[in-house]
Amino acid sequence: MRVNADIFADGHDQVMANLLFRKRGNKEWQKTGMKFLVNDLWQGEFPVNEPGIYEYTLEAMVDHLSTWWKDIQKKAESGNDITVDIKSGISLLAESALKVKETDKKGAIQQLIALIQKGEQPERLIKPMGELLDNEFLQKYPLQNHITQYPNILRVTVDRERAGFSSWYEIFPRSCSAEQCCHGTFRDCLSKIPEIAQMGFNILYFPPIHPIGEIHRKGKNNSVTSNADDPGSPWAIGNQKGGHMSIHSQLGNLSDFQQVIKKAKEHGMEVALDLAFQCSPDHPYVREHPEWFRWRLDGTIQYAENPPKKYEDIVPFNFETEHWQSLWEELKNIVLFWIKKGIKIFRVDNPHTKPFIFWEWLIALIKEEYPEVIFLAEAFTRPKVMYRLAKLGFTQSYTYFTWRNTKQELTEYLAELTQSKVKEYFRPNFWPNTPDILSEYLQADNQPAFMIRFILAATLSSNYGIYAPPYERFINQSVPGKEEYHNSEKYELKNWLPEEVKESTRELFATINRIREKNIEFQKTNNIRFLPVENNQLLNFAKFNEEQTDAILVVINLDPHYTQSGWVKIPLYELGISPDQSFLAQDLLGGGQYIWQGEFNYVELNPHILPAHILRIRKHLKKENQFDYFS
Amino acid sequence: MRVNADIFADGHDQVMANLLFRKRGNKEWQKTGMKFLVNDLWQGEFPVNEPGIYEYTLEAMVDHLSTWWKDIQKKAESGNDITVDIKSGISLLAESALKVKETDKKGAIQQLIALIQKGEQPERLIKPMGELLDNEFLQKYPLQNHITQYPNILRVTVDRERAGFSSWYEIFPRSCSAEQCCHGTFRDCLSKIPEIAQMGFNILYFPPIHPIGEIHRKGKNNSVTSNADDPGSPWAIGNQKGGHMSIHSQLGNLSDFQQVIKKAKEHGMEVALDLAFQCSPDHPYVREHPEWFRWRLDGTIQYAENPPKKYEDIVPFNFETEHWQSLWEELKNIVLFWIKKGIKIFRVDNPHTKPFIFWEWLIALIKEEYPEVIFLAEAFTRPKVMYRLAKLGFTQSYTYFTWRNTKQELTEYLAELTQSKVKEYFRPNFWPNTPDILSEYLQADNQPAFMIRFILAATLSSNYGIYAPPYERFINQSVPGKEEYHNSEKYELKNWLPEEVKESTRELFATINRIREKNIEFQKTNNIRFLPVENNQLLNFAKFNEEQTDAILVVINLDPHYTQSGWVKIPLYELGISPDQSFLAQDLLGGGQYIWQGEFNYVELNPHILPAHILRIRKHLKKENQFDYFS
Repeated sequence: MRVNADIFADGHDQVMANLLFRKRGNKEWQKTGMKFLVNDLWQGEFPVNEPGIYEYTLEAMVDHLSTWWKDIQKKAESGNDITVDIKSGISLLAESALKVKETDKKGAIQQLIALIQKGEQPERLIKPMGELLDNEFLQKYPLQNHITQYPNILRVTVDRERAGFSSWYEIFPRSCSAEQCCHGTFRDCLSKIPEIAQMGFNILYFPPIHPIGEIHRKGKNNSVTSNADDPGSPWAIGNQKGGHMSIHSQLGNLSDFQQVIKKAKEHGMEVALDLAFQCSPDHPYVREHPEWFRWRLDGTIQYAENPPKKYEDIVPFNFETEHWQSLWEELKNIVLFWIKKGIKIFRVDNPHTKPFIFWEWLIALIKEEYPEVIFLAEAFTRPKVMYRLAKLGFTQSYTYFTWRNTKQELTEYLAELTQSKVKEYFRPNFWPNTPDILSEYLQADNQPAFMIRFILAATLSSNYGIYAPPYERFINQSVPGKEEYHNSEKYELKNWLPEEVKESTRELFATINRIREKNIEFQKTNNIRFLPVENNQLLNFAKFNEEQTDAILVVINLDPHYTQSGWVKIPLYELGISPDQSFLAQDLLGGGQYIWQGEFNYVELNPHILPAHILRIRKHLKKENQFDYFS
Repeated sequence: MRVNADIFADGHDQVMANLLFRKRGNKEWQKTGMKFLVNDLWQGEFPVNEPGIYEYTLEAMVDHLSTWWKDIQKKAESGNDITVDIKSGISLLAESALKVKETDKKGAIQQLIALIQKGEQPERLIKPMGELLDNEFLQKYPLQNHITQYPNILRVTVDRERAGFSSWYEIFPRSCSAEQCCHGTFRDCLSKIPEIAQMGFNILYFPPIHPIGEIHRKGKNNSVTSNADDPGSPWAIGNQKGGHMSIHSQLGNLSDFQQVIKKAKEHGMEVALDLAFQCSPDHPYVREHPEWFRWRLDGTIQYAENPPKKYEDIVPFNFETEHWQSLWEELKNIVLFWIKKGIKIFRVDNPHTKPFIFWEWLIALIKEEYPEVIFLAEAFTRPKVMYRLAKLGFTQSYTYFTWRNTKQELTEYLAELTQSKVKEYFRPNFWPNTPDILSEYLQADNQPAFMIRFILAATLSSNYGIYAPPYERFINQSVPGKEEYHNSEKYELKNWLPEEVKESTRELFATINRIREKNIEFQKTNNIRFLPVENNQLLNFAKFNEEQTDAILVVINLDPHYTQSGWVKIPLYELGISPDQSFLAQDLLGGGQYIWQGEFNYVELNPHILPAHILRIRKHLKKENQFDYFS
């Protein structure tokens, strides 16, 4: 963890500064010296070796011994008489001697004091003074009267790597049956795991897996009436068979589910569960804990609504109930229950409809014991609310990427996410689609659109996900005039036929995920820089490594219909390539190789073939003199 | 004072917010409602009618009555049955009735409650409910359980207008003699006042006017030895005749000085004094208060130094002396002394070499009693230190403008000053020269350079100043290799001959100051926007009025040698001019008029004639149909 701070004092005295840090819970601070960089900016670093919350603060002070010594040196260099100046340092040296360890130059100080006291010539003193007062010594034994303590204790949350680099693959386990017309099971899921892992995804995310309410169960296409064979929305949680800690019996049992977790793990994937803190009207809680809900004057339960919208199959918890403590405790227990079953990643449904303070409390409590847990906020809400949830502790968040299509929209949004202060606390997760959202861009009957949005999500952001089955099949039929799937899987069983999968999508998924895995530039989000290209349908950006010495250039044709071309700018200066030097642009996606030269180079992208280049810029092109037979 | 804040709650309840404000010293808060703007941003306003420090904070809450009423309206509009919903509001209405005044709809509420209780049809209730629960009522009697109080009390310092709009004219009164070879006096200054006022300056600034030290007095060109007739640097304050509260006898007496203050005032100007908190070695303080200074081991006093530089004619105060309280008190008394003599503007010499905490204490104390006092910080130091001094209370500050010459340098620096958070606390004052600084740009033997730098200072910044006599005479001879005046007025008497003044400069001063006075766009600094012109020697910027509906365009040729031309962009969209509409660009400086059309228009500037346009853009060009004889 690197900490920068402006540190300065009035006058020209020598300033020193320390960074104080500790893991939260520890009482003792550890200290490390800070270094001056430039323009009153200082930097310190402390190790954060494991996930958790760390605290840090600063202290700064004027060091009288180095101030005195630096002044003496300057005066001596310009030939001033420094006899009196040296004498005035005796008291400082004596004070220093009291601090210094016997083994550590204590003798040398005392000798020096004696020399000064007996009136040794300044020119003879400079050398022993220099030997004694080197930087190491001055840093180790500063002489300070007043320490200025930074008044705030700052906090940094350290997450595990998966929090910053993840690719989510969302499927409904009930639709995993290999056979037509049957309710899928966890056992069916088992057989899908190898092919999903093969495509390089590392999180397998399931919508809720709990018993589904029967009262007011929704039918196909969100109909308020349902037939006997309608499965209902998995987000209407709970029926007489159980609630948030139970498993929908048609999926299998807990042991089956744990088989899925295990097999996923064997294939390098983790299973993410949905946390939807709401109930169907027949959830056991409604009977057992009526005090956790809102009841209307007519004795009916208050279902979820956002007037004029109504969600009759769902009743919300009353988080402000007088009995909030038992409710909150129970919700915490739900999370702990699944953590103990092996789940460490949760996608949280609609967190913005629950109190901020509840999340702050819940996430802090959970992460204290399980700092490795990841919470993804499905907060499709107003920006300030989204950012607030991130500040309260959510690890990742859904974003507006879903609706950012043009170059202007994408660059402005990425600037907000990666260059404003938002980057300090908000980790975006880019989803081209979800079971709730089929965006207008994807609705056009145009297959390259799916490829383009996927490449954008997976290269702009280090965290991304797709709601896979309809994406892999280019399904684009929406409820007319809305951005919702027609015949949404939320309300009906699907039997996704393997033969309908477009192999081109799966190949693209696999290639892109492999590129992300192998190139660290794609494992961060804030390292992006947009670069000019004079064609608004082409997006050109570089992702840099931490040292800013290496970069991958991504050029994407945003137009799913036509071939677009333009001259893209390469960040030559940053990469240490001179404008007259030729270099290699190696296409990690399409496999081509281009020998380029100069800042601007030509690209042309046909969306019906491959809508993007992902170019590793290689500074050193092989030259004839590198071959053995050259000499 | 306008206050913006992000205010939001979880869920979709109706939020309300108040701005609380008071003048510092008052205990009671005043309250005013805030209005929702957009994207969770709210705005409130409170009046700041007089200079001083104001405090403000916020409170926000969910209002249950409006939440209930808005929900009912939405449900009713979409045809839902709202019988139960209306009944659930009885308790809210009853709670409201307790708060409401008899004269203020109390009866109406009680009637409404009675109607609901007796089971009136919802459709018959909507109308009386609407009449009762209008916005005014809901704002006046909110029903809130929990108020969220913003935890910080914020502060805004309100200064008088001169703090934000000033033009400083610096002269040494000792050089004001009309006769050759005589020490100038305050009486001599009196006769200069009308012509300075004529040029439109509104602050007349004098370097220190106190007795000048004799021990180690500097000679010409900062020589360490001086002749008997060398007057010494006015910043080496104090001799046996007096110190910071005395007047150098050759200038006159206190009554003469007050004549100057009075006459300046009659001509619309204020006199600014120099506050240089330092002494010559023969200042009475050294004798009377040796405890306020640093003494070396050899019994000599510690003079000012910044190794290897030495200032033998100046001894600094030891602000950290054990007797700091009496020292600080005395320094405060110096300021109060001059305030009582009629001085309300101080230029503070080298504030960065004194403790931050001293300035914070001094300025707060002074402004508590005299909020109209202006302190200009002569802080030519590192940026963070400059900004810190502004935060501590300085009203204005010198800047790096003096060294910003090219378009890139000027636009970057102005962006820092006017667009970053710096603009919230730092008021820049632009000086092309000072007695300490003759910049390289002005050293070139080129008269347009002086015109260009003056126009830049006075149009980029609403606060600016010049060290006038050498500027008016295009004096450009420096100490070789340095940015200091050769034969600096700091160390010798000058007899500035009136016939050496270049009338062109004084005409320019008068014209520019008149333009600044008449056009409010020049009376602010942060209203600047740079606009494109594809010639790096041309600087093109607009200064907008507060409503952003009117603007003045300034185009300056930064090249003092050659005529430069280019196509300047006009902010047509902001000014409400369509690209096909012709408009008038009226040159307030040169007097020309241009009929232009479209975003980009041609300018050509010959620096030897006039290096700038100051264009008032007039939207409405006269047309034939506006004349009487048209019909």
